Amino acid sequence: NHYIICGFGRMGSLICRELAEEKAPFVVIEKNPDIIQRLEDEGYVYLKGDATDDKSLLRAGIRRAQGVVCVLSTDAENLYTILTSKELNAGIYILSRCEEEVSEHRLLRAGADRVISPYKMGGMRMAMAILKPAMMDFIEITTRRQSLELRMEEMPLSEDSAIIGRSLEAAEIRKSYGLIIVAIKKDSGKMIFNPPAGYVIEKGDRLIALGEDEDVNRFNQVCMVP
Amino acid sequence: NHYIICGFGRMGSLICRELAEEKAPFVVIEKNPDIIQRLEDEGYVYLKGDATDDKSLLRAGIRRAQGVVCVLSTDAENLYTILTSKELNAGIYILSRCEEEVSEHRLLRAGADRVISPYKMGGMRMAMAILKPAMMDFIEITTRRQSLELRMEEMPLSEDSAIIGRSLEAAEIRKSYGLIIVAIKKDSGKMIFNPPAGYVIEKGDRLIALGEDEDVNRFNQVCMVP
Ligand SMILES: [Ca+2]
Ligand SMILES: [Ca+2]
Repeated sequence: NHYIICGFGRMGSLICRELAEEKAPFVVIEKNPDIIQRLEDEGYVYLKGDATDDKSLLRAGIRRAQGVVCVLSTDAENLYTILTSKELNAGIYILSRCEEEVSEHRLLRAGADRVISPYKMGGMRMAMAILKPAMMDFIEITTRRQSLELRMEEMPLSEDSAIIGRSLEAAEIRKSYGLIIVAIKKDSGKMIFNPPAGYVIEKGDRLIALGEDEDVNRFNQVCMVP
Repeated sequence: NHYIICGFGRMGSLICRELAEEKAPFVVIEKNPDIIQRLEDEGYVYLKGDATDDKSLLRAGIRRAQGVVCVLSTDAENLYTILTSKELNAGIYILSRCEEEVSEHRLLRAGADRVISPYKMGGMRMAMAILKPAMMDFIEITTRRQSLELRMEEMPLSEDSAIIGRSLEAAEIRKSYGLIIVAIKKDSGKMIFNPPAGYVIEKGDRLIALGEDEDVNRFNQVCMVP
């Protein structure tokens, strides 16, 4: 149930830092011996090898992994790793970084579930900082890992969560926790925005809540209680 | 009231595309003759010159500009441009890209109002795609320029807007427009999250609204009507 991080460059190390903070299990594949020392220093689980190679991916446990993150230095290497990963585990979730804009559709066609281009994203964020500065602040503050103010959080439900079958109103999400449910992502992938108070919570729903840090944590626990 | 974009590299061209779509006025400073042709092709206002040079910034109208965006290829060039810009117009808004993580605090100390690191942002987004995929979808969908579904939008008020002095409830934002005001950024910079229905709208407030595309547009117009 772990993630395989292919490449420990700048992006790779940032992703590992976030995953480690959230205690999500992962293993890094890195071939550059100069970088291995940094992995040692961080104390991360890693293996020395080439992520474009079947053997490295198999050793990293791709058959039982939850996802592969391709953050190698070129789009060509990422593309190759996506194809190899799909061959070894057809159902695995694949996330890839994309350097050149033209590569995006190729990486998706090769089987990546999601492609992220740091330059494109950075450019859009910089434009947002100019055109919609308050909205930019709102997103930055609410999506921070530890916000002292309002926080947005995604809440999965446990299989036997007590709130399954109850309406948002009956679950007293607004009344007892002061939270707004801005959207619900259904198991099918469908997204319901701004759900009405009468919406009945179903198994597999992921609630996206907005509220005070402590209230979010309090309700997060309720979602997991049978 | 324009923006000066220093550098028409990858980030620079993405920012210009966003600004052009929103019809925000800007002028680009670029020194590389190979890139000038692309600026010609796009039909953007530009001047050939070095953005670290006082003369280029003065020619680009820095004394009357609203902001400077530093997206030159190195942190050193961006730092130099920030310092020069502050000298020429102390009150100007400065946004800078940052390449190396260690440069961030230097760029801020030099006078940048906001610094964006594409790698850091990309890494955080990739971690979010793994750890909080529904929240990532929510943000991507709602912050898109043209969303066919729910949209988040920042709404400034005109000086003489009819809704100034009314409460959120009295302005019927929820009742008539189906919008949720998730936050309000005050003129002072203070952010009020999840404001109560009794909150009285003040001059200079920027409302951050969440709702259906057409409702957002409808209410946006109301904010501008005396
Ligand atoms: Ca708090
Ligand atoms: Ca619509």
